[in-house]
Amino acid sequence: MSNEDLIFGRNSVTEALKAGRSINKIFLLDDKNNIPLKKIFALAKEKKIVAEFLSRAKLDKLSGGKNHQGVIASASPVQYSTTEEILSLAAEKNQSPFIILLDELEDPHNFGAILRTADAVGVHGVIIPKRRSVSLNSTVAKTSSGAAEYVKVAQVTNVAETLKKFRDLDLKIVGSDICAEKNFSDADLTGGIVLVIGSEGKGMRRLTKENCDLLVKIPMVGKINSLNASVAGAVLMYEIFNQRSKVGD
Amino acid sequence: MSNEDLIFGRNSVTEALKAGRSINKIFLLDDKNNIPLKKIFALAKEKKIVAEFLSRAKLDKLSGGKNHQGVIASASPVQYSTTEEILSLAAEKNQSPFIILLDELEDPHNFGAILRTADAVGVHGVIIPKRRSVSLNSTVAKTSSGAAEYVKVAQVTNVAETLKKFRDLDLKIVGSDICAEKNFSDADLTGGIVLVIGSEGKGMRRLTKENCDLLVKIPMVGKINSLNASVAGAVLMYEIFNQRSKVGD
Repeated sequence: MSNEDLIFGRNSVTEALKAGRSINKIFLLDDKNNIPLKKIFALAKEKKIVAEFLSRAKLDKLSGGKNHQGVIASASPVQYSTTEEILSLAAEKNQSPFIILLDELEDPHNFGAILRTADAVGVHGVIIPKRRSVSLNSTVAKTSSGAAEYVKVAQVTNVAETLKKFRDLDLKIVGSDICAEKNFSDADLTGGIVLVIGSEGKGMRRLTKENCDLLVKIPMVGKINSLNASVAGAVLMYEIFNQRSKVGD
Repeated sequence: MSNEDLIFGRNSVTEALKAGRSINKIFLLDDKNNIPLKKIFALAKEKKIVAEFLSRAKLDKLSGGKNHQGVIASASPVQYSTTEEILSLAAEKNQSPFIILLDELEDPHNFGAILRTADAVGVHGVIIPKRRSVSLNSTVAKTSSGAAEYVKVAQVTNVAETLKKFRDLDLKIVGSDICAEKNFSDADLTGGIVLVIGSEGKGMRRLTKENCDLLVKIPMVGKINSLNASVAGAVLMYEIFNQRSKVGD
C-alpha cells in the first residue's frame, strides 16, 4: 500500500468517512476500551466500510512512524460506483450490459491492466469484493494509464448474491476454467454478460464457479499451465467485444 | 538490472565469453590505454556481443561497490537461440513458423508476460534486437513464470534485415497499428507468420512498419488510446492461434 493512499488520525479519518470519501478499509487499534475509536468503528459500520483490528506495532509500521492515533484509513484515489450505476450506464448507451467481476484478485498491477483493457473494449463497469481483494489505490490508478478515472468500479459485500441478482436480470455469467470443455472462441458471448476473472494463484472460488452459467477454456499448448490474470482477462474481453460488435452491441 | 545477472572482473568476464555463455551486453571502463580491457573488447566483438563504454563512477554504481576491474557483463539466465533454431523447431513440428518479434520493447515485465503467452499458444520463438531492447534477465525469467526456460529467444543485430530474410521464406510479417484499416479479427493470420510487437511508448519504428506485409488494428472504444504491450500481444497471439487451430496448424 502506497503512503499516498493512507489517511491518519481520528479527526482526518472521521471527516473522510463523514464526507463520503471512497474508503477501501479502515485499520483500528485493537483496544476495546478506547471510546473515540469505538465511535469511528460505528461510523465505518454505518457506511458499510470494512474494518480490521491491528496491534500498535502493525499500525506504526503501516503509518511509517506517523502519528496515527490508533486509526488509519486506506482511501481510493477515485470514487467508487454502485452496481446500479453500472447497469444504468449500459441502459443509457442502449447496450446490453458488459460487466467484469474480479473474484479475489490480489495484484494491483493486474487490476490496473484489466481496467485499461476494460476501457478499451467499452466495459460498463468492474465489480470487486470488499474483502480479500485488491482495492482501488494509487498503484492501480498508475498501472491503468488513467483508465481508473473512466471505468466504473463497484465494491460488493457478497459476490454470490451479486451474481444471483445479475442472473435474475438475464445476464449471462461467464467464467474461465482450464477444465471447461468449450473453447472461448466457440462460445456464444453476445448479449448481457458478466465475465468473472479469478485470482492469480487459485482461479475462481468454488462457489463463484457454481454461480456461472457458462465456463469456457482458454486453450494452452505449452509447458506452463496458466496465463497472467490480466492477459487471460484481455483475451476474453476482446473475444466478447468482437462478438458484440458483430451483433451491433 | 538485478545483481544476479551481473558478472564482475576481467577473469570472470573473459571466462564467461570464452565459455560461450549467453551475454546480453558488456560494460567497459572508457580508458583507451588499458590493454587487458582492450583484449576483452576484442573478444566480445568476435562473439558479436554489444559493448558499452562507461565512466568509473557509472561502473561503480552498476556493481554496487563490488570490485569490477573495469568490466561488467550482463548475463542471461538462459541460453539464447538463433533464428535458424527457431525455424528448425517449426519444421520439426511440421508447422508453419509462428514467430514473435519485439521491436525495442523496454519493460522486462512485459517481456516476461509475452514469453508466458507465447508458450501458451505454441510460438516457435521470440526475436529481440541486440541494441535498445530489453534482454533476457532474472526479472524477465520470473515474470514469465518459467516460460523463459521453454520458449526460444534469439537476438539479432538488424531487425529490418531479419524481417527481409523471413519474407524471402514466405512468412507473413504482421504488425499492429492504431491507424490500420483492418481489424485484427477480420485479417487472415494463417500460415507462416511473424508478429511484430512495438515498444511500450512509441509502438513500431517507421522502418519496421514499412517492412510489414500487413498492418492490423486492435479496435478501442474507450478514453485511453493504447493497450499494455503484453496485453496487445496476447490478444493478437490468441487470434493467430485460433485461426491456425482451425486450419490444423
